Amino acid sequence: MRFFSDNAAVVCPAVMAALGDSNRLDSAYDGDLWSSRLDGAFSDLLGRDVRALWVSSGTAANCLGLAALCPPTGAILCHEQAHIEQDEAGAPGFFTHGAKLSLLPGAGAKVSPAAVEDACARVRYDVHQVPPAALSITNATEYGLSYRPDEIAALGDVAKRRGLGFHMDGARFANAVAFTGASPADLTWRAGVDILSFGFVKNGGMNAEALIFFDPAQAEAVPRARKRSGHLLSKGRFLAAQLLAMLDGDVWLANARAANAAARTLANAAGPERLVFPVEANELFVRMTAEEAAAIRAQGFDFYDWAPGEVRLVTSWDQDMAAVARLAAAIAAL
Amino acid sequence: MRFFSDNAAVVCPAVMAALGDSNRLDSAYDGDLWSSRLDGAFSDLLGRDVRALWVSSGTAANCLGLAALCPPTGAILCHEQAHIEQDEAGAPGFFTHGAKLSLLPGAGAKVSPAAVEDACARVRYDVHQVPPAALSITNATEYGLSYRPDEIAALGDVAKRRGLGFHMDGARFANAVAFTGASPADLTWRAGVDILSFGFVKNGGMNAEALIFFDPAQAEAVPRARKRSGHLLSKGRFLAAQLLAMLDGDVWLANARAANAAARTLANAAGPERLVFPVEANELFVRMTAEEAAAIRAQGFDFYDWAPGEVRLVTSWDQDMAAVARLAAAIAAL
Amino acid sequence: MRFFSDNAAVVCPAVMAALGDSNRLDSAYDGDLWSSRLDGAFSDLLGRDVRALWVSSGTAANCLGLAALCPPTGAILCHEQAHIEQDEAGAPGFFTHGAKLSLLPGAGAKVSPAAVEDACARVRYDVHQVPPAALSITNATEYGLSYRPDEIAALGDVAKRRGLGFHMDGARFANAVAFTGASPADLTWRAGVDILSFGFVKNGGMNAEALIFFDPAQAEAVPRARKRSGHLLSKGRFLAAQLLAMLDGDVWLANARAANAAARTLANAAGPERLVFPVEANELFVRMTAEEAAAIRAQGFDFYDWAPGEVRLVTSWDQDMAAVARLAAAIAAL
Amino acid sequence: MRFFSDNAAVVCPAVMAALGDSNRLDSAYDGDLWSSRLDGAFSDLLGRDVRALWVSSGTAANCLGLAALCPPTGAILCHEQAHIEQDEAGAPGFFTHGAKLSLLPGAGAKVSPAAVEDACARVRYDVHQVPPAALSITNATEYGLSYRPDEIAALGDVAKRRGLGFHMDGARFANAVAFTGASPADLTWRAGVDILSFGFVKNGGMNAEALIFFDPAQAEAVPRARKRSGHLLSKGRFLAAQLLAMLDGDVWLANARAANAAARTLANAAGPERLVFPVEANELFVRMTAEEAAAIRAQGFDFYDWAPGEVRLVTSWDQDMAAVARLAAAIAAL
Repeated sequence: MRFFSDNAAVVCPAVMAALGDSNRLDSAYDGDLWSSRLDGAFSDLLGRDVRALWVSSGTAANCLGLAALCPPTGAILCHEQAHIEQDEAGAPGFFTHGAKLSLLPGAGAKVSPAAVEDACARVRYDVHQVPPAALSITNATEYGLSYRPDEIAALGDVAKRRGLGFHMDGARFANAVAFTGASPADLTWRAGVDILSFGFVKNGGMNAEALIFFDPAQAEAVPRARKRSGHLLSKGRFLAAQLLAMLDGDVWLANARAANAAARTLANAAGPERLVFPVEANELFVRMTAEEAAAIRAQGFDFYDWAPGEVRLVTSWDQDMAAVARLAAAIAAL
Repeated sequence: MRFFSDNAAVVCPAVMAALGDSNRLDSAYDGDLWSSRLDGAFSDLLGRDVRALWVSSGTAANCLGLAALCPPTGAILCHEQAHIEQDEAGAPGFFTHGAKLSLLPGAGAKVSPAAVEDACARVRYDVHQVPPAALSITNATEYGLSYRPDEIAALGDVAKRRGLGFHMDGARFANAVAFTGASPADLTWRAGVDILSFGFVKNGGMNAEALIFFDPAQAEAVPRARKRSGHLLSKGRFLAAQLLAMLDGDVWLANARAANAAARTLANAAGPERLVFPVEANELFVRMTAEEAAAIRAQGFDFYDWAPGEVRLVTSWDQDMAAVARLAAAIAAL
Repeated sequence: MRFFSDNAAVVCPAVMAALGDSNRLDSAYDGDLWSSRLDGAFSDLLGRDVRALWVSSGTAANCLGLAALCPPTGAILCHEQAHIEQDEAGAPGFFTHGAKLSLLPGAGAKVSPAAVEDACARVRYDVHQVPPAALSITNATEYGLSYRPDEIAALGDVAKRRGLGFHMDGARFANAVAFTGASPADLTWRAGVDILSFGFVKNGGMNAEALIFFDPAQAEAVPRARKRSGHLLSKGRFLAAQLLAMLDGDVWLANARAANAAARTLANAAGPERLVFPVEANELFVRMTAEEAAAIRAQGFDFYDWAPGEVRLVTSWDQDMAAVARLAAAIAAL
Repeated sequence: MRFFSDNAAVVCPAVMAALGDSNRLDSAYDGDLWSSRLDGAFSDLLGRDVRALWVSSGTAANCLGLAALCPPTGAILCHEQAHIEQDEAGAPGFFTHGAKLSLLPGAGAKVSPAAVEDACARVRYDVHQVPPAALSITNATEYGLSYRPDEIAALGDVAKRRGLGFHMDGARFANAVAFTGASPADLTWRAGVDILSFGFVKNGGMNAEALIFFDPAQAEAVPRARKRSGHLLSKGRFLAAQLLAMLDGDVWLANARAANAAARTLANAAGPERLVFPVEANELFVRMTAEEAAAIRAQGFDFYDWAPGEVRLVTSWDQDMAAVARLAAAIAAL
């Protein structure tokens, strides 16, 4: 049983069915019926008129979004453990033509208003320094923590006061919604978020992510940037259809709840002593000696060593709960 | 019946089946079983050890390939009607960090050795001018012409003499193979081609193209560039599986033959007088007055007006031959 | 006697004196007294409030200006013989992050309104093509022709109608002013020009060019871009002082008149039959057999072979008129 | 009396004289007599065959050098207080097409081998992370500390072991040489440095810096990059002449010694308690209350407040030693 990454999980039935259903002749690129329904479907979910674009990777979503907020001469504030800093091969620098990531500290990869404020306060806004132009947070964070609406709103306030565009990397946004029980609106635009990378692939999709703009003006240049970066696929209906299928009947939320529930089960088994961070999504970081980890693996479970004495377990939408129960028991028995 | 673009066609059954078959847990990115089989499968087809990467669009394939051949300070020679010049929103400039496209003339979007030679001869190789570093041709061309192996070899000779990397945009490579009957090897590396964008999407695929490197050294930096441009999808197995499914049993070739046959039928009906270019793939450019075009459209056929007095018809792998016959009759009756 | 290039000429006394005079302690970068006087001095000359920045090369002036007018996703229309296309090593692509130069035809490197209109008319303004965002002309042109105010105004009209920013590469702007007798205002902002690269180096300066913005809004991001490209020199007063010295007492105009007069003398000697283009600045393109060119060189004159049967002669602000007379006689005697 | 910055100081007589002497007709760009002598002159000084290019700013020198060592997909390790990070407006991102600066800690802006080693050890060398490709240190540092040869050699060892190119920002290299008494060779190539930005402007020059390549292969693409970034000035002889004038008779070293001596005088007056860092070049960071600073300023001395309770004083090559003595007395009297 593998607990490496939700990236590796299978695609959910709703998406597979949608691929079959959309296998009909239609216009190329995003001129098709499915693509044309995206704005409406996401506007309904988010309680506000939004502009929604499909892209085929989270990196593309993040970086097209960031490039819409930050000029080449600006800086993007983000956590030092942010995915855009650690795991996107410098893609933000590519899409923004050389803008800088300015790194913020914070436990659990969580950004605080004070950290944002400090970073801005350190900058001289002259031509010699790189002025912060955007703030990007990840929700749920890279360590599986979920921001509450008021935490995001506090960041949104600093962002507005400092003139920063506000981007949310929501690769696991669904998990954050599922955990907090807050509405997508409260976690985003009502809290000042301008652009959301709304992840579907880790949550049961195949190769479609949604890039959501709460301010249509910020979206204006993005379709061209999407094309210019090779991300305007010619049969875009197969991406749009995936997203629509997961919005329909809130599959996205059900999937995230399932993954979170599996993580919760494991977290309960591990107990607070072993948990490096509270488990607020579908990732666990668990203190374990090498011997303990080996013992668990010997029982058929696979996962990453994350740091000395620490392993990472990621659950997926389709987790077999019997296997989860066995793993939970194994952990509890350590 | 729509003859707008092969981009709009449905996905072929082999690909749909492969998506289902590959919907199993495996490693993320390109660490999976399917992705690991790509090099071998394409090496078999091409008769030489190649490096094969999946990407999700032709623009990404072309531009990752070109960036592997041309530094930011260089120029890429291509036809003035090339897709990379006309229809990729400046993506070559993005991926190469500002390299230049130097445009070549030529009937039917076909590049001649003399045109390449002339372009090189006009350049002073000093620091003030931009030295050509690569040659890119499209096969079949944007006007549906297919290069013969000796034509490509002649271009390969100039390229080698002038120190140019040689890239082939093969968005419709399958159609060129089907038309010429030449082997993929004779149309590429045996003729001096270094990198091939091998198109599958226009030929019945969903969202996977293959980027083929005949010289592994030129491929070395590309996986990183693919990631940095957001084109390393996390569930890459679904792209690899599409390509493998179309290689298996030569579905790619059968599909291209079907599309070409439909085009041939229409071409025969149109007759040489009406054809702007010989029909050597799955595109026809047909002389027609506005009234004639309207008459055809009135019978239920849709297509693009291309230029005054000229329309474009594109056939697909799945063309209903009865409909094609009706359109052929309608054209013949003009 | 060398007639290779005005780039090679000596620096005029006013500039040398200014360097000495400005060798006093002052603020670094452009916080000094001399730099602070630039806006006023150029506003006086141009009859309008302008923003004036020093840079140390014409390439920097051109490309910082173009980047202020054209986004990475746009195209700059320019003549196919334009300096920015032919002789700046792809710098426009660097400073604009990959924008495209779209090339226009025209005798004598002169751009016509019809050529601009045609180029725009050929573009589909969708996300697949690169939309023209700016027009750049060179005045005097690369072949020594000077635009008249009404010619520029006609281009300005097309630019405005097509939504193009309008840039003038004025490496030899002084020569064009001197030849036409038109006012700097009539040749620029009154004719719709937005940004002027006002050249001083070819006209007796050492290493300072002026970048002039007629619309302050377009200048806003440029100081930062200048710094980011390494063009904010720390002792900027020495650049500002050069420009001020040449504006003072219209040294710039006297120098250009001297260079033009030398060219005129040679043009008269050559006669219309030998001249490839009318001589309207300080460059001559003269038809000459290889034997004739050799004969002239044997008399101690040096110059470039430009094309088969054609040589280029460039005169400078400091041309020794006795030597010019001897060369004129030698040409007349051919 | 101003102690703001050595950037603001006057140009030394040798340089002013050289400008006059080189005001003769010669070839444009770097085809002239003076430019052609640079390689030889710097090779003599550095005891090894080097390639030397003039540029007009330290930012250009640093960034052209870094771009020669680091691809767009790589990272440059540097101190978090490095000039390239803090004061170049993101120019490294511009010249490298988006490479990343990875920041190192260290007192006094000094980089330690352990910090470099740690940064490399934290990186997974897969396609998801940005691999370090270069190390850049500043000597003397941004806080006026000078590396000893063995310290540099230790960094050079790590760099070599980790496959990092090694760049030195030597904006105040002359001051470091003057302070340590070490040879330029021992401070650079003998310690593993690949590329040196050898600063002249802060040390009495006008607008010429030298970019030195110890490995000619690394220099190969730089002349083109220099042109493409607008840094190939057309009358380059005036830059080359400045550098030659300061090498001739070791003016560069005499100037640096003078600046250092002034700083030493002030440092002795301040005493170790007040000094934030040892004074090893021409910069002092002095602890002073706001009242104390005001008292000094009231006596006619100007300088920057650097941090709460801390001021920065920078001395120049031409410092009036009587004024320095007065300031020293004023500080001693606090």
